[in-house]
Amino acid sequence: MPLPRLAVTAGEPAGIGAELLIRLAATPLAASLVAITDRQLLERAATRCGVAIELIDDDGSVQTERRPGSLRLRHTPLAVDEIPGQPDPRNARHVLDTLAEAADGCMAGRYDAVVTAPLQKSSINDAGIRFSGHTEFFAERAHAEVVMMLASPELRVALATTHLPLAAVSAAITQASLTRTLRIMHAELRAKFGIAEPRIAVLGINPHAGEGGHLGREEIDTLIPALDALRHEGMHLLGPLPADTAFVPAQRRHYDAVLAMYHDQALPVLKSEAFDRTVNLTLGLPFIRTSVDHGTALDLAGTGRADPASLIAAANMALELVARRDTRPPSPLRGEDRDEGTILPRTIK
Amino acid sequence: MPLPRLAVTAGEPAGIGAELLIRLAATPLAASLVAITDRQLLERAATRCGVAIELIDDDGSVQTERRPGSLRLRHTPLAVDEIPGQPDPRNARHVLDTLAEAADGCMAGRYDAVVTAPLQKSSINDAGIRFSGHTEFFAERAHAEVVMMLASPELRVALATTHLPLAAVSAAITQASLTRTLRIMHAELRAKFGIAEPRIAVLGINPHAGEGGHLGREEIDTLIPALDALRHEGMHLLGPLPADTAFVPAQRRHYDAVLAMYHDQALPVLKSEAFDRTVNLTLGLPFIRTSVDHGTALDLAGTGRADPASLIAAANMALELVARRDTRPPSPLRGEDRDEGTILPRTIK
Repeated sequence: MPLPRLAVTAGEPAGIGAELLIRLAATPLAASLVAITDRQLLERAATRCGVAIELIDDDGSVQTERRPGSLRLRHTPLAVDEIPGQPDPRNARHVLDTLAEAADGCMAGRYDAVVTAPLQKSSINDAGIRFSGHTEFFAERAHAEVVMMLASPELRVALATTHLPLAAVSAAITQASLTRTLRIMHAELRAKFGIAEPRIAVLGINPHAGEGGHLGREEIDTLIPALDALRHEGMHLLGPLPADTAFVPAQRRHYDAVLAMYHDQALPVLKSEAFDRTVNLTLGLPFIRTSVDHGTALDLAGTGRADPASLIAAANMALELVARRDTRPPSPLRGEDRDEGTILPRTIK
Repeated sequence: MPLPRLAVTAGEPAGIGAELLIRLAATPLAASLVAITDRQLLERAATRCGVAIELIDDDGSVQTERRPGSLRLRHTPLAVDEIPGQPDPRNARHVLDTLAEAADGCMAGRYDAVVTAPLQKSSINDAGIRFSGHTEFFAERAHAEVVMMLASPELRVALATTHLPLAAVSAAITQASLTRTLRIMHAELRAKFGIAEPRIAVLGINPHAGEGGHLGREEIDTLIPALDALRHEGMHLLGPLPADTAFVPAQRRHYDAVLAMYHDQALPVLKSEAFDRTVNLTLGLPFIRTSVDHGTALDLAGTGRADPASLIAAANMALELVARRDTRPPSPLRGEDRDEGTILPRTIK
């Protein structure tokens, strides 16, 4: 059977990315792994990890098996050799080149999914390049509107707002933004997760979901109208639910994913129960993208001791999504395919 | 050995409180349980639960053992018989009478602690009485400033703000309010939990604890100066920490309790992992008070099917705190006993 082709980017050359990639290659993961990075960077990382790897230039052909330790390579040269722990802005362009190849390759069908290791945003900014992260880069490259989702084997959480000051959260959430986010979530739970009728639990903005207006009016003024309109189209939505009880085991049975209103309302739950099994997914892209959920760990880089658990989890999640991709249920949701001014996610092929 | 005397209030007569109390009495809990409620309310609840209980008027004497099913009673009459599921504002005064007896009795040394079943705030308000909850009632009665803490066997979380709209959180947190809250927490972790040098993890207000000011300035302008001043007095404080990683197992080893900035930043973690073992504690009172962490469950009232796990957890926590109370470490923290305009918690005796 042909193996799915996973593009894997190494992220910041001075970080732990290349070492994680070596560790990933050493596992028996049933995928054609295509590293998009510099050959010598990988070889140096393998030496630091004390792991033997076999690098094969990627010719785009289909593999039916992969030996642990073997890795295909799309060589993308560094500008200067890395010094572990010390990001060099001269390599910023290299990092972006790897992302561009991953995205373009996915869209052209050369890869089935992309898995990203962490990069150093500040080093790219130091090179004078406007850049705010993988997610935004891919969204722009694919002309897509996206939603950030964090997922563990037990829980999927998407975010209505991501990296915003707490005081700005309430004003950032509008009926239009919620509608857009829920449409993307709903379409992607069907398209990428193969869930025919996704059940989405939407958290309130305020404690106790506002308690009937006593603890804030956003639920009444914004959330409930937006949810009701989408229910009218046939979406299965729960809530707005009080966040403190939404994650108890008895509640989890009732939904497939949660839409949290802001970062710290849900990520503490997810990470406290599944820190190294939490994967970052980008919903809304015309391809599958998963990522580790940690940073470049500059203090660990070069030691060969970084834990690859999160990259392995991200690769496994990508494989799972590739497998589910073609099970997309046939009947579209009422209204889902109508274009009402939002950019609908596209699926490849 | 004399048993600790726990005052237990039944809360809303039309709710599940009396039934929970009957279930608690049926356990072998090693405490002198003094129900502060109406005799016939309890008898009817026992009938509904199908449990035989032995009610003994409390004479204040010390018990050295208690048979399961036996319960002392401080009879506090209802105004009208309860109808399960239908709170009657005519019983509002009765509910407040039970709370007043519990608080005054603790302060007078008649009880070692109070454990409260849930009440129906709205029914008390419907009686024309200004009332915002157990915690505020006890604080006012004891002339104390208090802090709400939720605790499970694995995690203790106090809140810098409690039931506030999300948009009001940032402005409600000042250096003065944080200082007051942390002083109470610190003093109570020593006095009631017997922790000589409490280590408190303080969460940031913003995601990633503000990421050096990129995601909000409250950490730089408010939290860090307040924490530094308290560290200078000798308090062991961690943070401000990013909330999403503060609860991972590796972090928990480093602290005894967490101060979260707002309700939904921490309670989802606590409740998702220990829903029916989570206990509500009031810090800062001159007595020990624990409570269930759920509501009156009016839909379940009268069925005898309500789960007493949370009330049992609250009673056990109260007993644990009674046992630890007298182990208060001898050397006061530098500056702790200086009165700087805050009301310091008092300990009884």
